[in-house]
Amino acid sequence: MGGDNAPAAVVEGAVLAAREYEIKVLLVGQQEVVKETLRNFDLGKGSIEVIPASQVVLMDGSPTEAVRRKRDSSIAVAARLLKNRDADAMVSAGNTGAALATTRSLLGKLKGLARPAIAAVIPNAVDVTILLDVGANAGGCKSEHLLQFAIMGEVYAKDLMGKENPRIGLLSIGEEKSKGSATTLGAFPLLMQSKINFVGNVEGKDIVNGTVDVVVCDGFVGNAILKFAEGMSEMILQLIRAELSRGKLSKLGMLLAEPALRKFKKRVDYTEYGGAPLLGINGACIIGHGKSNAIAIKNAVRVASEFVSHKVNNHIEQNLQIMNKQDS
Amino acid sequence: MGGDNAPAAVVEGAVLAAREYEIKVLLVGQQEVVKETLRNFDLGKGSIEVIPASQVVLMDGSPTEAVRRKRDSSIAVAARLLKNRDADAMVSAGNTGAALATTRSLLGKLKGLARPAIAAVIPNAVDVTILLDVGANAGGCKSEHLLQFAIMGEVYAKDLMGKENPRIGLLSIGEEKSKGSATTLGAFPLLMQSKINFVGNVEGKDIVNGTVDVVVCDGFVGNAILKFAEGMSEMILQLIRAELSRGKLSKLGMLLAEPALRKFKKRVDYTEYGGAPLLGINGACIIGHGKSNAIAIKNAVRVASEFVSHKVNNHIEQNLQIMNKQDS
Repeated sequence: MGGDNAPAAVVEGAVLAAREYEIKVLLVGQQEVVKETLRNFDLGKGSIEVIPASQVVLMDGSPTEAVRRKRDSSIAVAARLLKNRDADAMVSAGNTGAALATTRSLLGKLKGLARPAIAAVIPNAVDVTILLDVGANAGGCKSEHLLQFAIMGEVYAKDLMGKENPRIGLLSIGEEKSKGSATTLGAFPLLMQSKINFVGNVEGKDIVNGTVDVVVCDGFVGNAILKFAEGMSEMILQLIRAELSRGKLSKLGMLLAEPALRKFKKRVDYTEYGGAPLLGINGACIIGHGKSNAIAIKNAVRVASEFVSHKVNNHIEQNLQIMNKQDS
Repeated sequence: MGGDNAPAAVVEGAVLAAREYEIKVLLVGQQEVVKETLRNFDLGKGSIEVIPASQVVLMDGSPTEAVRRKRDSSIAVAARLLKNRDADAMVSAGNTGAALATTRSLLGKLKGLARPAIAAVIPNAVDVTILLDVGANAGGCKSEHLLQFAIMGEVYAKDLMGKENPRIGLLSIGEEKSKGSATTLGAFPLLMQSKINFVGNVEGKDIVNGTVDVVVCDGFVGNAILKFAEGMSEMILQLIRAELSRGKLSKLGMLLAEPALRKFKKRVDYTEYGGAPLLGINGACIIGHGKSNAIAIKNAVRVASEFVSHKVNNHIEQNLQIMNKQDS
């Protein structure tokens, strides 16, 4: 029931995923509405089951309220399916805070982990960079949290992005190790001592120039950058289109350039990459953008399925354990 | 002597400014080198004087070292010119940390101000947004500091950008007033109670969509976003050019689109806007980008001159005084 285009986009995306990936999709939500919507799409040989959930958490609803008072919301029912092993993974395009609070409360955190994080995939000049945390934490992350984000980001890059020895950078305000906030200055030696491939401090520009695979930062900073990136790519396309359509010759240029611009937009389009995993939750939960269309939902289901088959959570727990042993 | 292209770019920019704005420019640096470089340019009716400074602060030198041990560096000599009223304003494309530490130590802060801030100008869909702080503070800004940044940003937008009633936003991770870090949650009521035109929390995307004139944030966050913006505009131009030059038809499109792309690049080009003022220092100090070319230096000199003629510092002190009276 979550997301700006729910339930239509979610239902269509689920149908596409069930047809394409040969997995069974459980659609959790208000039964009548969901079943009615399902009738609009051709399921083919795909398998879908509708699981009733009477309540809806609104996009701007309070996460704590959702946990306390909406025990029959689609997000809570879905989390309970995971808890009871009736589902392997979940996808939500709804209220991110509510998804986080609900899964944290019902499924708990991974062993040895202090704070979960949301990892986003940002296109760079070569392929993609993983940025985390982008909003599971509203600021106030400590040095040890950044180390744990790095460990989770490394597993994500290896297991889901196929990077063999991912380069991990610590977001700071200068490349020199002496530059940074109290938190990053404290995280630097922890990252140096760890077993990950730590390349040192990186700056904002390094998120997009392809010199690093994973960038670790506080959730407030990551969220601001992620939303800035979205706004900037929209703004730039607008500006370029406006510039191109001004002169007569340029108008012809625009006509010829349009296919390239569309390709580019696809490149910076979050829908291509599916959702962002809630790393650190004891369960596989993929968060879709609130604006997710059917393709985005389909891709998020694919990511959820890979998250499980690649045993991402097992690997995170193993690496956290190795690190905790090192410390003690 | 500061900046990646010093002294050539700085000297040429100074010549351009002296010729175009009819102001006297003092060039501070190693006398022989500067005079030698000056000979390459046609000063016309412009007026330039060379002031000797024997030492150079390197781009990656320590700011505290610069203050303590390099008393005859170009930045220190320039700051002393301001202190002794032998100059009205200064421009540096050198080490930002050293400029901040040196001016802070030699000129001091404005009355009633806790922390200086660097304000950057970011192109948006309509005109420009002012973002501060972008790096005078390496994180750890408190709620009251954000309020003071807002006051300084408002004066900057009014005096130097000609915005009559600038809309001020507080960078956060959601538009709802309940969303944010401990620091932004504390700053929200302070901004509400103040006399500025506070529009509430804004998100990263609002920095570029033209809905707000000034965005206030911690120096760590602002620095990361500013550098991300630089990296992203370079990356996008690369991507678009690569896409455009792929197909045959698109190659023709590229040829026709090229002038528009160049115009666009100019739009996101920091050099067009001159430097970023060090707001809160008791003196007019404009920081140029380390990569400044001659045009950027010329524009920074223009901004420095306007900073003085519009009495920016007087207005900041007046507004800080009004706010401090309100509080007590």
